Amino acid sequence: MPEFSGHVFIGVSVDGFIAKPDGDLKWLTERDLPFEETGYDAFMESVDALIMGRSTYETVLEMDEWFYTKPVFVLSTTLDPSSIERDDVSLHRSIDEVLAAFAAAGLTNAYVDGGATIQSFLRAGLIDTMILSHAPVLIGSGARLFGELTEDIDLELISVGSLPASFTQTKYRVVR
Amino acid sequence: MPEFSGHVFIGVSVDGFIAKPDGDLKWLTERDLPFEETGYDAFMESVDALIMGRSTYETVLEMDEWFYTKPVFVLSTTLDPSSIERDDVSLHRSIDEVLAAFAAAGLTNAYVDGGATIQSFLRAGLIDTMILSHAPVLIGSGARLFGELTEDIDLELISVGSLPASFTQTKYRVVR
Repeated sequence: MPEFSGHVFIGVSVDGFIAKPDGDLKWLTERDLPFEETGYDAFMESVDALIMGRSTYETVLEMDEWFYTKPVFVLSTTLDPSSIERDDVSLHRSIDEVLAAFAAAGLTNAYVDGGATIQSFLRAGLIDTMILSHAPVLIGSGARLFGELTEDIDLELISVGSLPASFTQTKYRVVR
Repeated sequence: MPEFSGHVFIGVSVDGFIAKPDGDLKWLTERDLPFEETGYDAFMESVDALIMGRSTYETVLEMDEWFYTKPVFVLSTTLDPSSIERDDVSLHRSIDEVLAAFAAAGLTNAYVDGGATIQSFLRAGLIDTMILSHAPVLIGSGARLFGELTEDIDLELISVGSLPASFTQTKYRVVR
């Protein structure tokens, strides 16, 4: 069975939020940062598939077009299976289930997305790298990227630098 | 009256905490980061005095020796004046009071320290620059650096880079 390796690539405010309380993302997306300079494409090339929670999946569904070229594994205990309408999207009820499906498909590297899902995978020791792009703003409240832990998680800095429009980008390896 | 300018220089976990729930700072201080490489001395040179809240002041009092060479303005509504035993430390009951005392002393640049005090000064539009040194760890809970806001606070990146021991250091100008 190939070893599973989870990877995070996410935009976050300097005070640690990934969305405003109402889900608004304008504070992140409406800045003068050309998308092609974020490193997103190279990151997507490096993963085999995506794993995301219900909330992120529903946000993706609201977009004008489907833009993933890799399989999407949705992790949710509540989502109705009828919400899954594409052959390259599958629904899983637990981390164990999604890991089993990942392995059965011969996949190794997952782009793990969404706050709750990232937190669950971090707590389970399933995240290997994190690329955090910090937008130059404090928004005060909303959905947090990180959550409670039962023990510290040490990180090792891979690189840090600036992007256009006062963004920074930090790459960490998770020590586990 | 000289214009007031507040400056932040603080160590923070990647998930945004400045202390563990019990006040522990080992996750920050017990790493292989030589103190002289943090830029603290140059930062201290650039300010006229310190402004800190009760909690930070009490932490400072517990240390073996007094290590500030600049005046300290303590901001607290509750601290007993008998706790102030040095001539270069003064107690103030409100931000307005501390600003008035700062101006009366002909001072301009303040090192604003402590989570609650930093948050109050940010909300009051009194912070000009922030130097954040991120320790490579997620600690999950504790005292947060940033708090609730009534509106977004935009930042402008001055510089970002790495320090030894997987630390990063980010300098922002607060847009106001």
